[in-house]
This record gives sequence, C-alpha cells and structure tokens, in this order.
Amino acid sequence: MNPERPDQSPITSPRSERVRRIAALSGRSARRKQGHLRVEGPQAVRSLLAERPELALELFLTARAAEDHPELARLAAEAGVPTREVDETLIRAMTREPGGGEGQDRPESGAAGAVSPQGAIAVARLPEESAGAALAAIAALPAEGPLTAVVLHEVRDPGNVGTLLRTADAAGADLVLLTRTSADPYSPKAVRAAVGSTFHLPVIAGAVAPALLDALAGRGITAAATSGYASTDLFEAELPERIAWILGNEARGLDEATLAAAPLAVRIPLAGHAESLNVHTAATVCLFETLRRRTR
Amino acid sequence: MNPERPDQSPITSPRSERVRRIAALSGRSARRKQGHLRVEGPQAVRSLLAERPELALELFLTARAAEDHPELARLAAEAGVPTREVDETLIRAMTREPGGGEGQDRPESGAAGAVSPQGAIAVARLPEESAGAALAAIAALPAEGPLTAVVLHEVRDPGNVGTLLRTADAAGADLVLLTRTSADPYSPKAVRAAVGSTFHLPVIAGAVAPALLDALAGRGITAAATSGYASTDLFEAELPERIAWILGNEARGLDEATLAAAPLAVRIPLAGHAESLNVHTAATVCLFETLRRRTR
Repeated sequence: MNPERPDQSPITSPRSERVRRIAALSGRSARRKQGHLRVEGPQAVRSLLAERPELALELFLTARAAEDHPELARLAAEAGVPTREVDETLIRAMTREPGGGEGQDRPESGAAGAVSPQGAIAVARLPEESAGAALAAIAALPAEGPLTAVVLHEVRDPGNVGTLLRTADAAGADLVLLTRTSADPYSPKAVRAAVGSTFHLPVIAGAVAPALLDALAGRGITAAATSGYASTDLFEAELPERIAWILGNEARGLDEATLAAAPLAVRIPLAGHAESLNVHTAATVCLFETLRRRTR
Repeated sequence: MNPERPDQSPITSPRSERVRRIAALSGRSARRKQGHLRVEGPQAVRSLLAERPELALELFLTARAAEDHPELARLAAEAGVPTREVDETLIRAMTREPGGGEGQDRPESGAAGAVSPQGAIAVARLPEESAGAALAAIAALPAEGPLTAVVLHEVRDPGNVGTLLRTADAAGADLVLLTRTSADPYSPKAVRAAVGSTFHLPVIAGAVAPALLDALAGRGITAAATSGYASTDLFEAELPERIAWILGNEARGLDEATLAAAPLAVRIPLAGHAESLNVHTAATVCLFETLRRRTR
C-alpha cells in the first residue's frame, strides 16, 4: 500500500481524527506539517484530477455531487485515487473553520466566507515551495520563444492570489511564482478563488525576490513592473517577447528595491480621476495587453 | 436652518438616536427611507466633499483623523457642511452592523468585512435612483463625440459593484448605470470598494434594461456585450466611438434577452485553460481596450 495514501477505512463520525486533519488544512502550518492541501468544489477538484492527477490522494463526494458530476469519480478511478461517498455533514465538518488562531487564513471564515464546497472535496499532496523550487521552475522554461511569467511579491490576501492565478491562466501565462511574503496559493480560499487555475499552470511559492530577478534575467526574461511614476505608457511601450510581470502588495505596491531592480517599468494610463488601480486590475490590463500583442 | 441638515446638537452617547440612524444606513431600506447614505474613510469622504459637495450633509472626524487629513474639515467648511469631532467609540457605533435581516448588505459584516472607517464618516443625500433618472442621464450626455458608458445589469455583490465603479472611472467612463436588480452602489460596502470613484462620475441606479438599451441607441451609443460564443474577437473588433459596455451577473453572465438586444457582442480571447473570466476581469479588459483605442 502506498504509504502516502491516507487511512482507507470508512469515516463514520464528523468528529473523527481523519476529518479533523482535513479541516485543519485551512491553516498553513497544518498544510506544511501534513504535506497536504484541501481542494473544494467540483470545478477545482475536476481541474486537480484532470491536470495534476499525480498530486491527488483522496476524493470525497456526496451522493448528489457524484450524480451531478459523474466525471469526478471517473477521473479519480483513472488516476488510481480512491473515492468515498460521504454525507453533507462530513463535507461540512471537513471545511469547518477553526475557532481562531489560524493567522493568514482566518478571514475566510465569517459571513461572506461561508462558501459551500458543493459536495466535492479532494485531498492532494502539497507541491514543494522553496526558493530552490522557484529557481528550478525558471530553469525548466524553454530557452527561446515568447513567454509570459507572473511574480506575486507581497500579495497578502489569499482571495487576491487566487483571482490573480485565474487571470494569469486566462491570459496564457506560462508560470506563476510567489515570493515568501505572499499569501499561500494552496490555502483553501486561494484555491477556491482560482476556480481550477491553480492546477492548470506551474504555481511555485517560496521564491526570494533578488535571486528570482537574477534567474529571470539569466533566462532572457525581462522583469516588468507597473508604476504611476514611470515615463513609458504601457500601450506605447515595447514589450519584450519574454516578460515577467512583477506584481506588488495590495496597499503599498512594489517595494522600491524590487521596482528599481526591474529592467522595465510602465505606467498604465488612467483616464478618470481614480488615483490608482488595485493589483488585480493592473495585472489584468498588463497581462491582456501582452496577450493582445502576441496574437496580433 | 436648512431642514435637510441633521440635528446640530452634540452627540454624547453611542446609543443615541442620531448614531443609530447613521448605523442603520448599512441597509438599503433605511437609506431610501432617510434619503441618506453613509460615506466612510478619508479617501471616499474627500472625494464626496471635493466632487459632489452639494450632496454632503455632515462630517464626523476623530481628533486623529482631523490631524492626519486637515483638508477634510477645510473642504467641509468651504461647502458649508458642519464638522463634528467625535471619539472612536462613536465612529464605531455609526458603522456597527445590525444583528441581521439587512438583506443584501449583510455579507459586509463578518470577519473579512471588519473594515475601519479610519476616523472619518460623512452623511450625504442619496442621489435619485429610478428608471427616469437613468433615462435623463443618458439624455444629458453630449450628442456627439467619443463616449464610454457602463451598464451593470444584475451584478449582485456590493463589493463587485464598487470595484467596477473604480475601474470604470480609471478607464475614463463617462457614466455608469445600474439596473434595478444590481446591488446598490450607495451601500457602505460598495462606496468603500469604489475608493472615491462613486462621486467622480455620474452613477445612476434604478434603470430598467430594455428601455435603457433603446435610450442608448437613441443617443447613438452602441450597447456592447461580451460572450464566450461571440464570433468577433475583442482585439480585432471595430469598436464604435460611442459605446456602452453591458456587464452581467457574476455567476450567470448576461441574460439571453439582453445579450440578444445588444448590437455588438465580442469574445475576449482566453489563452489558457481558464473557462471564463469573472465580471470585473472582463470589464477591465474591455474598458482598457476601449481606452487604448481612444488614446492611440
């Protein structure tokens, strides 16, 4: 038996140790300790099983979800992932938020965060996160040809991280890297907000900014930042064929050292009276302008 | 004394009737009944006082906020709006969420919604919202020349409405209209998310979709929708000089009747595996592509 596979015995109680371990995956420290993450909802689970089946460990479905989404059990069977039918009470217990003290992930509880996993939960292996893994992912990129990478540096809200992953994926990004001070892309809230994109493209956390910029340059990839003070307008800028958009903190933007280290800085033209764009809006404008130029 | 001006006597208790009436403005029915809205935070309050001083009725500042943002009391004085210094307890009491039952606005309470008004609150007159007001706003637009309008139709989340207002403003939209089934742009959550843009451009709620599309056409403005099934790619489409982007519900998109009634439908190219974009991402791509063409 694969030693990484969780206990295969039936789950009978929402208060069982197995259920509590899955619920604990709301917290980053439990994810690191267990080496697992929790994936919620049919769309994200389908994406995990279809795109990264080697990460999937176990699938839980209510009878209703199994009926509404028959492809989930089929994909799981093809990947050799055990599927268990559970009732709604167990699903809810698996996504129950801790009473407090989970730090970064805590805002996902509360009224607005009462998101239903719609009867489908998977447990998966947590991909490696480290400065070395980020450098290895850059080294593994093709040496030539057009390429778009995205770096999230100090993006702190898990929902923003997930939404940025979804948008990066939609705009055809080849790789997303996150520095250590960004929110965990593998938190349940970030995975929910990414609606499956987490598993569509390589997403590597744990990067360290200066080493990252050097590695990108070494691979012929130009780091590009946005700044309200940049003299070049995005729509008039020459965008290099191999580009990495560096996105900064929600409130403060990019720190000065990282901004200064980026070889390209562009200004997004603002026509109205708004003083700035939020990080996701800025990323959307830059990534779709990059896509537009590629497909032109 | 202006009869619309609230009671000018000092506020001494967080449990007073005046404080309770301001707190009640979290709910749409209380806003309509009182004819007032609550504006929170220095940036939104500054925008109200600078851009729409005729709407402002009363300003509340903590000593700290008055010191950090001296322009607020100055702008209020210039507009003839009374300013009162209050303590943090009163500010908190004015933004206290009701125990429940406030319908649409309820999700703003809860862990993630614990947003501080940073010591600055204004009470303002609620702009008129009706189908007639929307038609009048269209009739008041210039008869010729480039123009961008935005219509939010069944956008239900107040936070999304606010973020869309901010992005529409940044991209230079001339007018934002909301149909009756959209969230209220004057809820505290929507006003917070718009970070001041609510008062930078005309924002009219209460529109009715079919009459609205007729009025836009009558003013030479082409209604444009996005659809994954449209044959025309946004980046290759001829965009009319006078355009109104019609944005639909977060989950379902535009209803079929409205989509069919829009003379122009475009598809946003998706390069990755993502199945769709959220309404704000789609709006950002369309609005900044419109801006790019204008400034080219």
